[in-house]
Amino acid sequence: MANRNAVVLAAGKGSRMKSELYKVLHPVCGKPMVQHVMDQLNQLGLNQIVTIVGHGAESVQEQLGDQTQYAVQEEQLGTGHAVQMAGSVLEGQKGTTVVVCGDTPLLTADTIRELMDQHEQQQAKVTVLTTDVDDATGYGRIIRQSNGQVEKIVEEKDASEEEKAVTEINTGTYCFDNELLFEALSQVSNDNAQGEYYLPDVLEIANERGETVAAHKTSHVEETVGVNDRVALSKAEKLMKKRINEYHMRQGVTIVDPDQTYIGPDVSIGTDVTLEPGVHIHGDTQIGSHSVIGAHTTIDHATIGEETLIKQSVVTNSQIGSRVQIGPFAHIRPESTLSDDVKVGNFVEVKKTTMGSNSKASHLSYLGDAELGNNVNVGCGSITVNYDGQSKHQTIIGDDAFIGCNSNLVAPVSIEKGAYVAAGSTITKDVPEKALSIARSRQENKEGYVDRLKKRS
Amino acid sequence: MANRNAVVLAAGKGSRMKSELYKVLHPVCGKPMVQHVMDQLNQLGLNQIVTIVGHGAESVQEQLGDQTQYAVQEEQLGTGHAVQMAGSVLEGQKGTTVVVCGDTPLLTADTIRELMDQHEQQQAKVTVLTTDVDDATGYGRIIRQSNGQVEKIVEEKDASEEEKAVTEINTGTYCFDNELLFEALSQVSNDNAQGEYYLPDVLEIANERGETVAAHKTSHVEETVGVNDRVALSKAEKLMKKRINEYHMRQGVTIVDPDQTYIGPDVSIGTDVTLEPGVHIHGDTQIGSHSVIGAHTTIDHATIGEETLIKQSVVTNSQIGSRVQIGPFAHIRPESTLSDDVKVGNFVEVKKTTMGSNSKASHLSYLGDAELGNNVNVGCGSITVNYDGQSKHQTIIGDDAFIGCNSNLVAPVSIEKGAYVAAGSTITKDVPEKALSIARSRQENKEGYVDRLKKRS
Amino acid sequence: MANRNAVVLAAGKGSRMKSELYKVLHPVCGKPMVQHVMDQLNQLGLNQIVTIVGHGAESVQEQLGDQTQYAVQEEQLGTGHAVQMAGSVLEGQKGTTVVVCGDTPLLTADTIRELMDQHEQQQAKVTVLTTDVDDATGYGRIIRQSNGQVEKIVEEKDASEEEKAVTEINTGTYCFDNELLFEALSQVSNDNAQGEYYLPDVLEIANERGETVAAHKTSHVEETVGVNDRVALSKAEKLMKKRINEYHMRQGVTIVDPDQTYIGPDVSIGTDVTLEPGVHIHGDTQIGSHSVIGAHTTIDHATIGEETLIKQSVVTNSQIGSRVQIGPFAHIRPESTLSDDVKVGNFVEVKKTTMGSNSKASHLSYLGDAELGNNVNVGCGSITVNYDGQSKHQTIIGDDAFIGCNSNLVAPVSIEKGAYVAAGSTITKDVPEKALSIARSRQENKEGYVDRLKKRS
Repeated sequence: MANRNAVVLAAGKGSRMKSELYKVLHPVCGKPMVQHVMDQLNQLGLNQIVTIVGHGAESVQEQLGDQTQYAVQEEQLGTGHAVQMAGSVLEGQKGTTVVVCGDTPLLTADTIRELMDQHEQQQAKVTVLTTDVDDATGYGRIIRQSNGQVEKIVEEKDASEEEKAVTEINTGTYCFDNELLFEALSQVSNDNAQGEYYLPDVLEIANERGETVAAHKTSHVEETVGVNDRVALSKAEKLMKKRINEYHMRQGVTIVDPDQTYIGPDVSIGTDVTLEPGVHIHGDTQIGSHSVIGAHTTIDHATIGEETLIKQSVVTNSQIGSRVQIGPFAHIRPESTLSDDVKVGNFVEVKKTTMGSNSKASHLSYLGDAELGNNVNVGCGSITVNYDGQSKHQTIIGDDAFIGCNSNLVAPVSIEKGAYVAAGSTITKDVPEKALSIARSRQENKEGYVDRLKKRS
Repeated sequence: MANRNAVVLAAGKGSRMKSELYKVLHPVCGKPMVQHVMDQLNQLGLNQIVTIVGHGAESVQEQLGDQTQYAVQEEQLGTGHAVQMAGSVLEGQKGTTVVVCGDTPLLTADTIRELMDQHEQQQAKVTVLTTDVDDATGYGRIIRQSNGQVEKIVEEKDASEEEKAVTEINTGTYCFDNELLFEALSQVSNDNAQGEYYLPDVLEIANERGETVAAHKTSHVEETVGVNDRVALSKAEKLMKKRINEYHMRQGVTIVDPDQTYIGPDVSIGTDVTLEPGVHIHGDTQIGSHSVIGAHTTIDHATIGEETLIKQSVVTNSQIGSRVQIGPFAHIRPESTLSDDVKVGNFVEVKKTTMGSNSKASHLSYLGDAELGNNVNVGCGSITVNYDGQSKHQTIIGDDAFIGCNSNLVAPVSIEKGAYVAAGSTITKDVPEKALSIARSRQENKEGYVDRLKKRS
Repeated sequence: MANRNAVVLAAGKGSRMKSELYKVLHPVCGKPMVQHVMDQLNQLGLNQIVTIVGHGAESVQEQLGDQTQYAVQEEQLGTGHAVQMAGSVLEGQKGTTVVVCGDTPLLTADTIRELMDQHEQQQAKVTVLTTDVDDATGYGRIIRQSNGQVEKIVEEKDASEEEKAVTEINTGTYCFDNELLFEALSQVSNDNAQGEYYLPDVLEIANERGETVAAHKTSHVEETVGVNDRVALSKAEKLMKKRINEYHMRQGVTIVDPDQTYIGPDVSIGTDVTLEPGVHIHGDTQIGSHSVIGAHTTIDHATIGEETLIKQSVVTNSQIGSRVQIGPFAHIRPESTLSDDVKVGNFVEVKKTTMGSNSKASHLSYLGDAELGNNVNVGCGSITVNYDGQSKHQTIIGDDAFIGCNSNLVAPVSIEKGAYVAAGSTITKDVPEKALSIARSRQENKEGYVDRLKKRS
C-alpha cells in the first residue's frame, strides 16, 4: 500500500457557533467532533496525521495529544492556505493524502478508505468525496466532463442556472497525490473577492496539467454533514444517536424509544438488555446482559453486571455487580463498588463506598467513605457522618450487621460483624461483634398534653 | 355468519432478535406482540383460535393461557408446515380461517374483519391481505391477473424486473376456506432451495383448481409491520405509541408531546387530563379527569382520582384519591392507598400503607406497613421502623396525630388519635390519645467550644 | 401609516377539544393560544384590538385583561357574525383591520405586518392570507382570476374537481378596509345549509363592487396552523418548540436534543449554556452563560447565574447565583435565594430560604423558612423544624456554622456565627456564637446481646 497520510482541518473560527469553545471541540454524543474524526482516521493505519490548528490551538492539542502532529495556521486565509501549513511535515513525500474537516463528525473510516482505495486504483491525482442531495442550494456543485472526470467545483454564487441544477455536491473531503498537492498549493492564488486561498483550486491546476481528477460518490449522505452552527450540531447529534442506537439494537439490545436514548460512542452493552426512554449512558461504560436500565437514568463511566435493574437514578464512575437493584431516585457517586445482589433503594446516596454482596440500603440513607461487608442491613435514614468540618473519615461495617433507622455512625467508627445499632442512635465509638449499641433517651408519654397545649394557645 | 377460525403463527425462532426471549413475547408498549394479536382476534367472536408454537412453547402458553388452543411445530419447516399443524384441530371443518403472524402487533380487529368479510362476500377460497408500499424491495409482490384475481406471490429473489416494479405486497396475513386450506397444504411440496413448505403455494393450488383467489388491500400500511429484529421492534413501538396517544388526545386528553409519552394499551384516562413529556403509564391504570401527570413520572397499575397532581414520581400498584398531590421525587410502592386530599411530598416513600384523607407526609419520610387516619401530619424525616431484622411490623397512627420531625416509630406501635410525637424522638411504646410523647435528651450549649477545638487541632 | 386595527376571533366553542377549558386558552409551550396571538399583535403598534368572546368570556378576559377591548358574541352564528360584533367599536372608522383567529398561535407579527403592508400598498379592500399546502383536502381553496385577483374562496364540499386541485388555501386570516368590512357584513346573509353568516362572503361582495380583492401568500405554512382538537394542539406545540429552540441555538445555546427540550416563549438564555435532553424551562426564567442544565430538570420562573450546574432537579420561583451546584434530585421551592457558590445536593429541599455564598446542604436535608449566612455546612439529614402543627417559624444560621448530621433545628431558633451542632441533636434553644450544642444520649454497647436475642427468638 502507498504511503498514506491525513490532514485534518481544525483551525476554523466557527463564529456562527457563537461560542467561547473552539468549534471542533463541541461534542457530539459526548465526544468532541474532531475526536470523532481522529478515531476514524486511527482505524486506517495511516503513516502521518497532521492537524491544522489556529484559534484555540492549545485546547485542541490538549484533546488530541499525540494522536496527531500539528501545524499552526496563524491567519485564516482559506482552506488552501490551511492545508499548505501541513507542508512542513508532508511536502515532497510520495503517497496519498486525505484532507478532512474537523467538523464532519459522522464521516466513517470505511468511507475514507473507499475514497483512498478508489483514488489509488484510478491513479488519480485528486479525488473529491461527493454525494447527491435533494436540495443542493448553498453547496459547491461537482461539474463533470462527459468522461466522468471532474472539471471543477462551482460555488453557489458563481454557478450558472445549468450548474445550479446539479445535485452532486462537494463534501469538503478530498484525496490528493501528496506531491501534486503541495506543488499545486504553491500556485493557488488569493485573487478573489474574499482574498482567500481555496483548496478546490488545486483541482483546476491538476486539470490544467492533464492529470486524473476524479470523484468518489458516497450514498451515505449523513456522513458528509458539516457542523457550522448549533442547529447543525443538533442534527449531527441526532444522526450519530441513530447510528449508535441501531448498532446496539442489531446486537440484541431492546431500546424502547431510540429517539430518546443517548448512548456514548464508547459504551458496550450485552444482549437482552432493555433501555427505557430517557436513558443516558456516557463515557467508558459496560452493561452486562439481561440488565434493565429504567427511564430517566443517567450512567457515566460505570461497569454494570448482569440482570441488574436501575430505575430513575444517577450512577457515576462506579462498579455495579450482577442482580443489583438500584433506585428509583438513587445516586451512586464515584469510586463506589456494589457487589452482587446489593440493593440501594430510593433517596439513597452512595459515595466512595464498598457494599458487600447482598447488603441493603433501601431508603433515605447516605453512605460515604464506608466499607460494608456482606448481608449488612442499613436502616432507613441512617447516615455515615464522614465529615467533621475539617476532614473526611471512614466507617467500617462488618458482615451481617444491622444498622437501625435514623442512626448516625460518626466516623471514624467501626461496627463489627453481626452487631446491632438501635434505631435513633448516634454512634461515636466502635461497636463490638454481636453487641447491641444504643444511644437514645427513654420515651416519656405526657398524657393530656395536647389538650393543655391547645388551651394555652 | 360462517364458522370463523384463526391460526396464529408463533413458532418462529426470531434469530435476528438475538434474544433468549421467544420472539413473539417481545413487548410493544408493554404488552407481548402475540398478546396484541390475540387481543384483536378476541374481538372477532371466532369459533376457534389455534396458536402454532415451537421454540419456547411453554413461555407462549404461559402468556396466552386458555385464550387459544395450541399446536406444536417441532421443526421449523416453513409457514405451510406451520399452518398444517393446526390441522389436528381444524381440518375438515367448513368455514373461514384467517392466518396471522404473531409478530404483527399493529394489525387491528377491524382490518381482519374487513378481510374476512370480503373473503366471504366474494366466495373466495383464498384472500391475501395486501398493501401498497413506496419501496417494495424485499417483500413478496402480489401478481394479479387482468380481472384482479391474484395469480401468485413472487418473492424478491424470483421476481422479474416487471414484477419487481409492483408495489402491492403480501403482508403475511391470509384468509382461507378452511377445507381447501388443509387439502391444499397436503399437496404443498418442499422442493425448493430452502427445503421448506410455503403457505403462499396454497394460492397456486387454488388457482389450478379454478377457485377465486383474491386480495384485500388495506390502506393502513402501518398495521402490516412485522417485527424481525429490534430495529423493527422499535418502529412498531413508535407506531403503536402514536395510535394510542392520538386516541387519548381525541378523547380530550392533553398530551404535550405525544412523541415522548408512553401509555400502555390498557390505560384509561379522563377528559382534561394533562400528560407532560416523559410520562410513562403502564398496566391496568385509570386516571380521573382534570388530573395532571407531570414530566418524568412513571405510573404502573394504579387508580388515580380527579384533579390529582403527580410530579416527577413513581407510583406502582396503588390507589390514589382525588385532589392528591404527589412529588416531585416521591415513590408510592405497591398496596398503598392515598385518600382524597392527601399530600406526599419530595423524597417520601410510601409502601403498603393507607393514608386517610387530608393527611400529609411532605418531606423525606418513609411510611411502610402503616395505617394513618385522617388529618395526620407526618413531619419531615419521620420513619416507620417496620423491620427489626427478622420480620415486618405495623404502625397505626390515629386521626389528627402530629408526628414530629426526624422521629422513629418503632413498630409494632400505635400513636393514638390526636397524639403528638416530639421531634427527634424514637418511639417504642404506644402513645395514648392526645398525649405528647417525647424521647430525646436535653440540649446543652458548650460555650467557646469551637475556639478550644480549633486550638487543639 | 393608516389607522390599523385587529379583530381577534375567540368565541368559538371548540367542541372537538372535548374540554371544559375555553378553546383559545389551551396552552402552547405553556402560554394560552390567544395570548400568543395577542403578543404578536402587540408588536404591531395597532390603534385598537377587539377580541370577540362568547363561551367562557370571563376566563378569556381574565387572561387578556386590558390588552384588548372586547365584544361579546352571544350566539355562534358564524365568522361573519362574530366580526360584526366588533362593529360596536370599529364601525365607520377609516383604516385597515386585520382579522385573526385566536387559535392560530404560530402566526407571527412579521407575517401580519407583511399582509397589512401589501394590502395597503395595493389599495385592496380585502386581502386574504393564503399559503400553499401539499394536500389541500378540507381547506377552503383560493380561486383567482387570471389577473391574480381573488374571485372567491370555495369550501371543500362546494368545490368542483378543478377547484379541488387548487393547493392555495385560505388560512383564516384576512385584512380588510375597515369601512368596507362593516358595510359588507351588513349585507352577508345566512341563507345556507348551516344558517351561518360567513366572513368569506365579504370577498364576493367586494368583488361585486369592483374592488381589489387580493391574496398575500406566505411561505411559512407552519404559521397558519389552526388548532381544533388536541392532536392539532400537540402539532402546534411541536412547531412552536422547534421555533423557540432554533432561536436559542442560533444565539449560541447548545441544545443536545431540540426534540426533547421544552422552553417557554419568555425564557432568556446566555451563550454557551448547555441544555440536556428532557429539560423543561418555563415562565419568566433567565439563565446565565456557561450554565449547564442537566437531563430531566424542570425550572419555572427562576433566575440562574453563570456557570451554574443543575442536574435532574426541580427549581421554582427562586434566585440562583453563579457557580451554584444543584442536584441531582434536589427541589428548590418558591422564594428561595441561593447565593454564588452554594451547593445543594441530592434529596435536599429548600423552601423560602436564603443560603449565603459558599454554603452547602449536600444530602437529605430540608431547609424551610430559614436564613443561612455564608460558609454554612448543613450536615446530611439535618432538618429545620419549621412547623409546630399550628404555624411556621424561622430558623437563622450564622456564617461558618456547622450543623451536624440528622439534627433538628426546632424553629424559631438561631444558631449563631461559627457555632457547632452535634450530630443527632434536637436543638430547641438558641446556640451562641462558637458554642457547641449537643442534645443526645451517651452510647451504651450491650455485648453479646445479639446472640442472646437470637436464642430468645
